[in-house]
Amino acid sequence: MSRPLGAIVDALGGRLEGSPETPVSRLAPIASAGPDEIAFVAQARYAGQIQTTRAGSLIVPPALADAAAGRGACIVCDDPYLYFARLSQWWRAQHDPLPKARIDPLASIHPGAVLGSGVDIGPFAVIGEGVHLGDGVRIGAHAVVEEHARIGEFSRLGPRVVFGRHCVLGARGILHPGVVVGADGFGFAPHDGAWVKIEQLGAVRIGDDVEIGANTCIDRGALDDTVIGDGVKLDNLIQIGHNVQVGEHSAMAGCVGVAGSAHIGARCTVGGGAIVLGHLSLADGVHISAASVVTRSIRQPGQYTGVFPIDDNADWEKNAASLKQLNRLRERLKLIEQALAAAQISSKTP
Amino acid sequence: MSRPLGAIVDALGGRLEGSPETPVSRLAPIASAGPDEIAFVAQARYAGQIQTTRAGSLIVPPALADAAAGRGACIVCDDPYLYFARLSQWWRAQHDPLPKARIDPLASIHPGAVLGSGVDIGPFAVIGEGVHLGDGVRIGAHAVVEEHARIGEFSRLGPRVVFGRHCVLGARGILHPGVVVGADGFGFAPHDGAWVKIEQLGAVRIGDDVEIGANTCIDRGALDDTVIGDGVKLDNLIQIGHNVQVGEHSAMAGCVGVAGSAHIGARCTVGGGAIVLGHLSLADGVHISAASVVTRSIRQPGQYTGVFPIDDNADWEKNAASLKQLNRLRERLKLIEQALAAAQISSKTP
Amino acid sequence: MSRPLGAIVDALGGRLEGSPETPVSRLAPIASAGPDEIAFVAQARYAGQIQTTRAGSLIVPPALADAAAGRGACIVCDDPYLYFARLSQWWRAQHDPLPKARIDPLASIHPGAVLGSGVDIGPFAVIGEGVHLGDGVRIGAHAVVEEHARIGEFSRLGPRVVFGRHCVLGARGILHPGVVVGADGFGFAPHDGAWVKIEQLGAVRIGDDVEIGANTCIDRGALDDTVIGDGVKLDNLIQIGHNVQVGEHSAMAGCVGVAGSAHIGARCTVGGGAIVLGHLSLADGVHISAASVVTRSIRQPGQYTGVFPIDDNADWEKNAASLKQLNRLRERLKLIEQALAAAQISSKTP
Repeated sequence: MSRPLGAIVDALGGRLEGSPETPVSRLAPIASAGPDEIAFVAQARYAGQIQTTRAGSLIVPPALADAAAGRGACIVCDDPYLYFARLSQWWRAQHDPLPKARIDPLASIHPGAVLGSGVDIGPFAVIGEGVHLGDGVRIGAHAVVEEHARIGEFSRLGPRVVFGRHCVLGARGILHPGVVVGADGFGFAPHDGAWVKIEQLGAVRIGDDVEIGANTCIDRGALDDTVIGDGVKLDNLIQIGHNVQVGEHSAMAGCVGVAGSAHIGARCTVGGGAIVLGHLSLADGVHISAASVVTRSIRQPGQYTGVFPIDDNADWEKNAASLKQLNRLRERLKLIEQALAAAQISSKTP
Repeated sequence: MSRPLGAIVDALGGRLEGSPETPVSRLAPIASAGPDEIAFVAQARYAGQIQTTRAGSLIVPPALADAAAGRGACIVCDDPYLYFARLSQWWRAQHDPLPKARIDPLASIHPGAVLGSGVDIGPFAVIGEGVHLGDGVRIGAHAVVEEHARIGEFSRLGPRVVFGRHCVLGARGILHPGVVVGADGFGFAPHDGAWVKIEQLGAVRIGDDVEIGANTCIDRGALDDTVIGDGVKLDNLIQIGHNVQVGEHSAMAGCVGVAGSAHIGARCTVGGGAIVLGHLSLADGVHISAASVVTRSIRQPGQYTGVFPIDDNADWEKNAASLKQLNRLRERLKLIEQALAAAQISSKTP
Repeated sequence: MSRPLGAIVDALGGRLEGSPETPVSRLAPIASAGPDEIAFVAQARYAGQIQTTRAGSLIVPPALADAAAGRGACIVCDDPYLYFARLSQWWRAQHDPLPKARIDPLASIHPGAVLGSGVDIGPFAVIGEGVHLGDGVRIGAHAVVEEHARIGEFSRLGPRVVFGRHCVLGARGILHPGVVVGADGFGFAPHDGAWVKIEQLGAVRIGDDVEIGANTCIDRGALDDTVIGDGVKLDNLIQIGHNVQVGEHSAMAGCVGVAGSAHIGARCTVGGGAIVLGHLSLADGVHISAASVVTRSIRQPGQYTGVFPIDDNADWEKNAASLKQLNRLRERLKLIEQALAAAQISSKTP
């Protein structure tokens, strides 16, 4: 399953240097790419890779065009990483296209569900009463779309996604296996040492072009809806609490937890394992480093971090022990400064 | 689907101020509630909300009765948040009652399973040999109840819950989609640089009135059982290791991990993303802040925290670098104090 | 279902002290073991347990043989914990053997799938085109094995595992319920404030004797494969990003997140809730403490930790506030040292 380099340029643009007949049998990382494989160099500062790679074809930025053309075939384009992303899509469509849509006879489809044209439904999927599936929607094996949910056109639910009642997904969404959208938010009123359940009467509304990773959970709202904006990308095993709002084109890496009613702006990123507490706001363009804990609202865009630096265990133990006395150390330091001042020894910045 | 305010008071009590005919079409947050919606004010210190809300009806504590009645209809009660929780349940029962129980013909039910009256079983559910389902139990689509498990009366398993062999769930439990109860605990003996599996011969026993969030996992015990007490509430994506014990009415937010053989007391709370290490104990009434790591037993009730404060990245980098020298800083401080003492300059607290 | 102690020794070896007819009805923790139960004492330093336990039989190391034999029946062996692991396996095989293999008529099996001998497939499982299941493979209810995946001999997939297209699992693997192998890795190119999907063209390759806990996710590679070595043990709710490599016999506890392209050596351990950032390497034999965040490559074996010590909340607040000024404290300390030096007061280590 090889394609000539020229076919790629015909489909995706860019300037071809070298023979359009150069065969491309695989997309590969530049470090391991072989003679009939294509790799990319994202930026001019990685120019050194051009000399060492064995890749038969390269995708390079204009600044590296001469260096790349000097060694073999290449495609010159403004943004090689973006080009590569589009190439990956083209490649999949060429080699591994979606199978022809069919409705598996083993699916359970309520007669009151409305199915668009070209809908694909896998074995043992369950489509509830009043569900609306847009044109070209694909529902994986064992997926459950509960009553009155709506799935926008060309969205795809992987195997055993649960998409809850009255929830809405926009167009071109991708939900990976095990995603749960619309389980109850975590709401209880304390009473006599026990908890009284607050029924979660809201739903989840998800915009267009959203991708949600495996086993990620997005809870339905208590009263209003939980809202995920257009273009949001969520990795695996993420927890989104009830009434959270995530602004458009924000992205979160695996294992993030966002507590209830947090509002995350547009074009934010949240690193893996970070925790965002509830009832706070992140401005647009806030970037949270992996494993950081957001305990307060952040009003200014920028990068924010809060992680205990890892160390060998013996050193960590010493520093951690000192940390528990840090406030006392600070007081001792102040006393010294005062004593030196009294003794007329200056310890101030000159 | 509107209800008159008087019907709410008839059902749930409280003192009505204003017209019992006031229409209520939705429960709403106070900030966005409209003229035919009802909201609550939990405490007197939120009195200011009464003046600004557009809510047609309010639920308020006695201290706010006059202020609320002065602007429109209201229900006066001792604990508005609790009242609101009960109202949410009543509202759901009115507008969205559970459908009539039925056994889907596409479910796989072992002839040796025992089903109480009024049991509901969804499509493609699997009920194993020797399973006992109490009266009014509801089993969602694709849920799997393995051999000899017991589900107490009126408990509800969401779609694709897996409830393991010989495990027990009490009455009125709610298990959300993707919950796994009774997978093997993580136990291996090291041998020659590899791991030898320890079969997990215990089960999981869960009390009454327990709610478990989507994709949460509770492992079976190695020898004895893992035990979850009455009234415990677990949010989504929580991991409970083998032989953990969770005391009654404790609650944990999303993404918490509790390692094997930890014993958590009654009426504890564990914030989202916190980690509790194995083989330790938390007393009753211990509250762990979100994302904290419990590395030792805690014998006294109270609030406990251990989180690196988030900061803008540049400041964090400087402080984190200093943190790795903290113990050295402490030693330098001590040397200064000794030097000052030798020089007869007092740096002690006066 | 009792077994004589002699039968255990016949099957598993060790030196029997006392009557081979001593009945054993259960394996039990030493603290709660009763007269017809067997428990183990792992090491000589736990000798005190021998005097207090009510266990009818004990498994002990040679150093404790006399003490144990003096109180009742025992098995003497070099490694009681390992012996106990093997006993747990023998016990399960005796009391709770795997049921006879059968192919459930409610499974959906593509005619182009290849099934070895003695394969067991549960109800509603889905086996795709070109799948290869080795001899003795067991596929749980609702498990989905996608096109062209290969499952090695005697491997077992629990209920509703999703095992992705073209992915490979070795022999004797155990995948617990809800595992997702082969969902897309999290890869996007930024473009005009949005994200362009990078199709994930690699797969996941998993070695022999691997165990994977409930709801854990292992993403497929972007170009090359994600690789899990022989003998690796992963607990529940773990996220393994695309193109991660995990060396043989490494083990990770629950809730760990490993970001894309991280390379973890052989015989490493990663404690629960730890986060390993992407594109870094851990040498063989690196041990990461629970909840630590690995932000850099680690080249030397050893134990590494980075956790904020938990404290009562009031003390934590003071120390956390001081921590945000730590770098400034360090500068103040330096100024004091300089001032003392100028005043000819020595604060250096004598």
